[in-house]
Amino acid sequence: MDFKDSLTAFNAQKKGSFPEKGKVNTQISTLIFKHLKSSGIGSHWIENLDDHSMVVQKVKIIPLEVVVRNRIAGSLAKKMGKEEGLLLKKPLVEFYYKDDSLNDPFLSDDQVLAFELADAATITELKALALKVDQVLLQLFNSIKIDLIDFKLEFGTVKSGQVVLADEITPDGCRLWDQQTGEKLDKDRFRRDLGMVKESYLEILNRLKGIIK
Amino acid sequence: MDFKDSLTAFNAQKKGSFPEKGKVNTQISTLIFKHLKSSGIGSHWIENLDDHSMVVQKVKIIPLEVVVRNRIAGSLAKKMGKEEGLLLKKPLVEFYYKDDSLNDPFLSDDQVLAFELADAATITELKALALKVDQVLLQLFNSIKIDLIDFKLEFGTVKSGQVVLADEITPDGCRLWDQQTGEKLDKDRFRRDLGMVKESYLEILNRLKGIIK
Repeated sequence: MDFKDSLTAFNAQKKGSFPEKGKVNTQISTLIFKHLKSSGIGSHWIENLDDHSMVVQKVKIIPLEVVVRNRIAGSLAKKMGKEEGLLLKKPLVEFYYKDDSLNDPFLSDDQVLAFELADAATITELKALALKVDQVLLQLFNSIKIDLIDFKLEFGTVKSGQVVLADEITPDGCRLWDQQTGEKLDKDRFRRDLGMVKESYLEILNRLKGIIK
Repeated sequence: MDFKDSLTAFNAQKKGSFPEKGKVNTQISTLIFKHLKSSGIGSHWIENLDDHSMVVQKVKIIPLEVVVRNRIAGSLAKKMGKEEGLLLKKPLVEFYYKDDSLNDPFLSDDQVLAFELADAATITELKALALKVDQVLLQLFNSIKIDLIDFKLEFGTVKSGQVVLADEITPDGCRLWDQQTGEKLDKDRFRRDLGMVKESYLEILNRLKGIIK
């Protein structure tokens, strides 16, 4: 899996990049996959190949983006007319159909079943896995004074049929707010033209480096 | 409950009307509520007051539009990039948050729970009731050579806490296709400027009159 220096938002309608982004995200994702592994959560990650790519298990990607939300932000805030940052009583898992040509539409569980994108057992497993990842990441980011607002995961099926965490975990797919200042340290800086994109990704990397060996 | 002659579509951005529409829909809704009642499905309907209004039970409306789909059409066809008319393997129930200012957003069960719009028991009950109505209406419309593609229901809670079917059931909230010709006999004629709106509503009324006494 290769990490590029490019950045996209709004279904790739907005494009950008910054130097070394691929390297920074490779390091962030590696640290997080290692930490998840030490917490008993496997992923497709095997080892790093060089500073911008990793060797991963071959998986058949489940065509769902699995979003976990701890606080209301982004599309959910807009859809429900709520302020960003409101804490949900418990983490919320959402499914989006991975199809760029359709703009990754949001799906209910019943729609996932109706379009045979996953069966009932897989839906249950995806939710349980996503919430387990959330518990570990909430604690991890909390220990570096960052609020994990929400994040996107993807899962794949390996040859044996087991469902494993795939894709990457980086500020591209997570909302990460500094607990002290409230500052966003994630792709919203690019999406919303807030500047300091590279610096924010590096801040996340440096804080993670301080606690994950 | 008063039935008006006005017609709206796209969250009231498109407006229209036709003479006698209120009367036609009052008759259609009355016939359907009567038929549901004789099939063991209660509603808020008590009796008709005059030719364009009915006396109904006082309910506290549950803020969800409950959509049942037998075939893919409308927003679901667009969202999933599918042809209209495709048969679903089994009926699909969807929830939309009743809030015009937010454009009635589509919600997953988990979102309904997270925003406390209904509890888990109510979600289960709404789905069961909606599917029960669907079974009765499918058979009813089939007997008058009409395919029930999808429809919208609303439910309310009466004083005792019981959930009952409320609102209206008319071609405004159902997709009804003639089995012989495939012609649409519902609000899509207005939405899509197909003409013959009044004639189509009257056709539905006349066919229903032929079988419900």
